[in-house]
Amino acid sequence: MIRVGVVGYGTIGSRVADAVRSQSDMKLVGVVKPTPDYRAEIAVSLRGVRFFAPSEGGLRAWRERGLPIHGTLDDLLREVDVVVDTTPGGKGRGMRDTYESTGVKAIFQGGEPPDVAEVSFVAQVNYDAARGRRFVRVVSCNTTGLARLLYALDREFGVERAIVTLVRRAADPKEVKKGPIDALVPDPPRIPSHHGPDLQTVVPGLNVITMAVKAPTTHSHVHSLAVKLGRETSREDVLGMLSSERRIVLVSAASGFRSTADVLDIGRELGRPRADIYENVVWADSVSVNGRWLYLFQAIHQEAIVIPENIDAIRAIATDLSAERSMDLTDASLGVKSGRIFRPP
Amino acid sequence: MIRVGVVGYGTIGSRVADAVRSQSDMKLVGVVKPTPDYRAEIAVSLRGVRFFAPSEGGLRAWRERGLPIHGTLDDLLREVDVVVDTTPGGKGRGMRDTYESTGVKAIFQGGEPPDVAEVSFVAQVNYDAARGRRFVRVVSCNTTGLARLLYALDREFGVERAIVTLVRRAADPKEVKKGPIDALVPDPPRIPSHHGPDLQTVVPGLNVITMAVKAPTTHSHVHSLAVKLGRETSREDVLGMLSSERRIVLVSAASGFRSTADVLDIGRELGRPRADIYENVVWADSVSVNGRWLYLFQAIHQEAIVIPENIDAIRAIATDLSAERSMDLTDASLGVKSGRIFRPP
Repeated sequence: MIRVGVVGYGTIGSRVADAVRSQSDMKLVGVVKPTPDYRAEIAVSLRGVRFFAPSEGGLRAWRERGLPIHGTLDDLLREVDVVVDTTPGGKGRGMRDTYESTGVKAIFQGGEPPDVAEVSFVAQVNYDAARGRRFVRVVSCNTTGLARLLYALDREFGVERAIVTLVRRAADPKEVKKGPIDALVPDPPRIPSHHGPDLQTVVPGLNVITMAVKAPTTHSHVHSLAVKLGRETSREDVLGMLSSERRIVLVSAASGFRSTADVLDIGRELGRPRADIYENVVWADSVSVNGRWLYLFQAIHQEAIVIPENIDAIRAIATDLSAERSMDLTDASLGVKSGRIFRPP
Repeated sequence: MIRVGVVGYGTIGSRVADAVRSQSDMKLVGVVKPTPDYRAEIAVSLRGVRFFAPSEGGLRAWRERGLPIHGTLDDLLREVDVVVDTTPGGKGRGMRDTYESTGVKAIFQGGEPPDVAEVSFVAQVNYDAARGRRFVRVVSCNTTGLARLLYALDREFGVERAIVTLVRRAADPKEVKKGPIDALVPDPPRIPSHHGPDLQTVVPGLNVITMAVKAPTTHSHVHSLAVKLGRETSREDVLGMLSSERRIVLVSAASGFRSTADVLDIGRELGRPRADIYENVVWADSVSVNGRWLYLFQAIHQEAIVIPENIDAIRAIATDLSAERSMDLTDASLGVKSGRIFRPP
């Protein structure tokens, strides 16, 4: 049984905590959270989550609120084998010394610089590179989604060049202070965006250029891809490959799946926890092949796609399980799908 | 003096009417408008615009409202040399017979199918092809913006292949019934979108693929472009060429121009009528060259960019003026700029 602690209980932390709880080979020892808000109350009352304060000074707020608090970060670190750091982007870097001094292994998120860890990780791409490591970084939602797709395309057809435009949801639903509300923001205004170089930390040597535009939505990113393959192929072959690739699902506008709002909708209709979609969502309608060039659209649920990767990263650094075995366990426990999730029209 | 009528007084029609009024060689004879709303009242009282009803049955609403009405569409057509049809997309096709039977020349907008006219028109690209024609179609905002830019790149460096993602504003500010308000919509979900083929009606043989995503904004479209040039060049040469190209302006995020909201803002700060930006707005920050590949972002003010083209189209079909002379007159009257509109940082 792998003893896991989670530091942070925001968009990613709350999901990782629940995903850990649903693994038969893991135990969620506790979660570090600064503020005893309604999310803490729900986690305690519905899920029995044990919370820890970041430091001694943080205990008081929990006691005043009347919510159980089980100690501090230092106390939690003494009880766990692996800690999953989900603190806000850039803060994990500063936490690393603390983790290092206590001997726990740690998983960081994509908001940290690559050098926070020994390996930048996407399970389908480089699980083995993370085996037995001390520090692993699960890359960001956009990078994860692109790595899964482009790695599979490269394995099957070769990728000579990939040109990607990321239309990014500007904020998660809870982030009400963020904008814009009526503007498109080239972000960054320079090209390439950081996503391409970040992707190369997972798929070295991939010839990819990324351009990112922020839009006022909250539900999912949309990527447009133009990929020059290593050989000519057909639309059918690409769809066939994508249909059998783990953690990629195919949808079609003709079946009524028209926008990122439908990413949220199928999450709810499927009864997923928090309506999460862990899979790359590729529009089959969009898949278009012309000679060696392939074009398509995919949507990425930014809150959820890295959750399976965090679970696999825990196994990669803390067990001897193979990549396939870990992903099988993760996907079965979370209900991760592949292939066409509705009948084609 | 070219006698001009405008049919429709929406986003495009109201702007074309005012632009015609500001030309020394044109006279706005009248505008056809079905409803005597606040915009009609402003146009009558501030600008002395003469309105005409679409038919006899439409006269009554104007009289009841107490606004002057000067006759019907048929009456207007008898007084003009050229009519600019700005009826809602697809409706102009049905109006063509009426225009044809009265002997006027007509200009249609990009919402009509290409076969509505003899020529699909962008002034900088194919003014001469429209000379002396009876029916000309000014292409849509996106197509106009792409045609200006890609034609200039092709002339200067050669364009071997262009891959464009259009992040489209979903609605104009007035179109409050349109969505989405929190979703990204691949629109159409198939690739290519219609923009590529439409662009080829203006720049035949251009090797371009377009992918379009609709976003919940109202201010401007944003295009990301990846263009394989015919020869290697430098970022400086591309910026140099763009700096001297008519109807293209360069902005930079470093100067504070960060999003499509700033397209509206400079329109207001510059004192433009309706805050209109007639130019392609290219982010200098984004211009990036790697071997023969060029990458950049541009914004297109969807309400305004086709206005100069409508004015030039009128001259192309009704006068002997050259393309350069017509564009000089148009640009001087509307204050159209080129080059860097702020000091580089």
